[in-house]
Amino acid sequence: MARKQKPIKSELAWSTPDKIVVRGKDLANEILGHLNLGDMAFLMILGRVPDKNESKLFNAMAVTLVEHGITPSAIATRMTYLGAPESPQAAVAAGLLGLGSVFVGSMEGVAKMLSENADIESMKRVPGLGHPIHKPVDPRSVRLFEIARETGFYGKYCRRIEEIGKQKKLVVNATGAIGALACELGIDWRAVRGIGVMARAIGLVGHILEEAKQPMALELWERAEDEASEQQRPKR
Amino acid sequence: MARKQKPIKSELAWSTPDKIVVRGKDLANEILGHLNLGDMAFLMILGRVPDKNESKLFNAMAVTLVEHGITPSAIATRMTYLGAPESPQAAVAAGLLGLGSVFVGSMEGVAKMLSENADIESMKRVPGLGHPIHKPVDPRSVRLFEIARETGFYGKYCRRIEEIGKQKKLVVNATGAIGALACELGIDWRAVRGIGVMARAIGLVGHILEEAKQPMALELWERAEDEASEQQRPKR
Amino acid sequence: MARKQKPIKSELAWSTPDKIVVRGKDLANEILGHLNLGDMAFLMILGRVPDKNESKLFNAMAVTLVEHGITPSAIATRMTYLGAPESPQAAVAAGLLGLGSVFVGSMEGVAKMLSENADIESMKRVPGLGHPIHKPVDPRSVRLFEIARETGFYGKYCRRIEEIGKQKKLVVNATGAIGALACELGIDWRAVRGIGVMARAIGLVGHILEEAKQPMALELWERAEDEASEQQRPKR
Amino acid sequence: MARKQKPIKSELAWSTPDKIVVRGKDLANEILGHLNLGDMAFLMILGRVPDKNESKLFNAMAVTLVEHGITPSAIATRMTYLGAPESPQAAVAAGLLGLGSVFVGSMEGVAKMLSENADIESMKRVPGLGHPIHKPVDPRSVRLFEIARETGFYGKYCRRIEEIGKQKKLVVNATGAIGALACELGIDWRAVRGIGVMARAIGLVGHILEEAKQPMALELWERAEDEASEQQRPKR
Repeated sequence: MARKQKPIKSELAWSTPDKIVVRGKDLANEILGHLNLGDMAFLMILGRVPDKNESKLFNAMAVTLVEHGITPSAIATRMTYLGAPESPQAAVAAGLLGLGSVFVGSMEGVAKMLSENADIESMKRVPGLGHPIHKPVDPRSVRLFEIARETGFYGKYCRRIEEIGKQKKLVVNATGAIGALACELGIDWRAVRGIGVMARAIGLVGHILEEAKQPMALELWERAEDEASEQQRPKR
Repeated sequence: MARKQKPIKSELAWSTPDKIVVRGKDLANEILGHLNLGDMAFLMILGRVPDKNESKLFNAMAVTLVEHGITPSAIATRMTYLGAPESPQAAVAAGLLGLGSVFVGSMEGVAKMLSENADIESMKRVPGLGHPIHKPVDPRSVRLFEIARETGFYGKYCRRIEEIGKQKKLVVNATGAIGALACELGIDWRAVRGIGVMARAIGLVGHILEEAKQPMALELWERAEDEASEQQRPKR
Repeated sequence: MARKQKPIKSELAWSTPDKIVVRGKDLANEILGHLNLGDMAFLMILGRVPDKNESKLFNAMAVTLVEHGITPSAIATRMTYLGAPESPQAAVAAGLLGLGSVFVGSMEGVAKMLSENADIESMKRVPGLGHPIHKPVDPRSVRLFEIARETGFYGKYCRRIEEIGKQKKLVVNATGAIGALACELGIDWRAVRGIGVMARAIGLVGHILEEAKQPMALELWERAEDEASEQQRPKR
Repeated sequence: MARKQKPIKSELAWSTPDKIVVRGKDLANEILGHLNLGDMAFLMILGRVPDKNESKLFNAMAVTLVEHGITPSAIATRMTYLGAPESPQAAVAAGLLGLGSVFVGSMEGVAKMLSENADIESMKRVPGLGHPIHKPVDPRSVRLFEIARETGFYGKYCRRIEEIGKQKKLVVNATGAIGALACELGIDWRAVRGIGVMARAIGLVGHILEEAKQPMALELWERAEDEASEQQRPKR
């Protein structure tokens, strides 16, 4: 007895010989030249085109996440590029794989906590608060909240995370601000990590281009290998 | 005898307690609210902020590449999400891994061919020409060249690929147009695949969000499994 | 003020001009020709060479996990290979990325539950029990427990999972048997997913080789694309 | 007009309620307890069960490739694990992604060159020859050729690579020996990289387990970040 097939469907895109439609919009005539890359990401996440204020705020949030210097992700990307320079897409993918619970997860945690109206006062460790370097304020959060005010999106979620920061005497870091702003824009917390993933893909392309001209992976590898196994070798 | 260490350095980003600098620009004050996500990608690739015309053209190029419906990449992403929904970054990475020589490689091939002034007439198969569906024109190329004219970037590389298309009686497809436009913007052909990789990361996040609400991976898997092994099983 | 460096070290391998040592063993003289690939995996996981019985059981466990036909992982691998045939390592990686909480996680769950002596009776859904096809027994579990008896490793964890299966009237599936056997061998539950990952890497190489000779990815893609976007297109 | 569907099929595995068949063999009764993990890999690659000599040689080849200490792959794996400890499969995948043209490609190059009977004398750089540390011999190659002699597989490909090594006054390294031995076993050069990929998946699981107990990724990251951006920061 054969299993009964269920239909599959997707509403993201379709095409005919003279037209490509993405999320219900004509790609050539309604999207190209009209939406910037951040607007397009907004369209993919929320299913509609942002207005001018949403565009400004969402682009700022995504731009914040593009580049953070030599992170574990950037190192994974550069190590992969060293072994497989013919596959830059694999080097970017390797870097994205580390965007898990430890780093990007924090942003998602903030959005979840705020959107579900969690009892934050009782939490021992609040995601989105504290930063090892940026004290007494994180300049990114200050600026993001400023843009939120300008665009009319500084609302209850922003107030809440700033309040909590004051209570806990900890800086609201960039992931805290972005998590709160995602709530203001009505983005589901489950989609928040995706903003980080797409933004970092851009940053990791930058690392590949720099690694091609000014490499560090080989040197980092040799140093690590020398030191890591040094104690194991018999003394001469 | 110990190996002599060589210094490593990166010029992408650095920070102090009150400042984050990316590509020489103050992130909070010179980038956030001023650059959109496509401009930021331009900055990462070319090391400088685009002017208004460059911004319009580059954003349109990147936006073109975001979403193509149910591609092999989208299927890989959705299959991965089915098994590891807790790791959306891994699902995006799985989809990026197929952006190799067959699909995105074509765009890179166009840029290399044009920038190195290759003898195209003698080539049997020219990258960037021909499309199985979009005939007699690819509406994306038409629109991208239109934006190139508006922004003053319709130059010798665009003319060349359009000329070759006419000679070979093949449509200049979107990868052909984007490859040519990358040359017009002075982007090294080695960086061209990166534009596709970053754009598709955005599109693949969209596929994950759709898969979460309206899944197809399980059904596609069951159909494939049933059919693939049917002939192997003993008849009953 | 500079951060104080901490030393790094690894005990996995080191080498001198005439010797390579892996996990304390001379690779050329004590490992090659003496250990099979499963024994080597045992050495990597447990830090010691298995005896004859451990070798037989562990190899059987790992071999069980190598190949399962057209799974979501196999489809992700084949889709990736379609786009990037020059990077077979990326196609294998794409397939591994889906070995998350849904499929391989179950094996890990069994090992955790048994090794932590959880109150299984009260659990609503017990990992490692039940199978959509293999009823009334999973032939792999039957055989693995048989090998466990032969090798002297059928102990309290095996008895426990079989007992629970009887109580819940569900078959002990292969992940249930392997989870229990990992406990019998003293393998930490945190290492159990790794056995699945290494085994599936072998199986996925097999899928790439088959895809190269007898492809299915292109056909699966075209079918999915046609159907998924059919309803979106305007009727003609 | 609808596209006509083509059938898909796979000969790798199928199952009925009481049986799982892999590559034509009954998994429970003909494979488990009879084949070790290397034999299973042989079956997946060559489609048949190895005899005793083939088993010994093939297992030795695969075992050689499992672990090489702190390589770029191992660093990518550890960096990924640092950010996403909940996804060990992603950490293994990240490490595999660097097994491209630079490292594992050499083994494939040897097998291709030997099996296609290339004019090696005229080649400037011969894959599989030379090693930065192991001189005047690579102990792995010496041992692998010894096992090849024992098992009756030291043939024309082994002789050829050893001859070339003498002519070029370079050591035949492990990738050179394994490439030649793959030819002796009748393994297609296109399948050779797969042996490296599966073996390294095992080694990378070992790195994750070590990183969990004795971490180095965080320290390596902090060192790299400090140094890389030091010169960029304004002097105080």
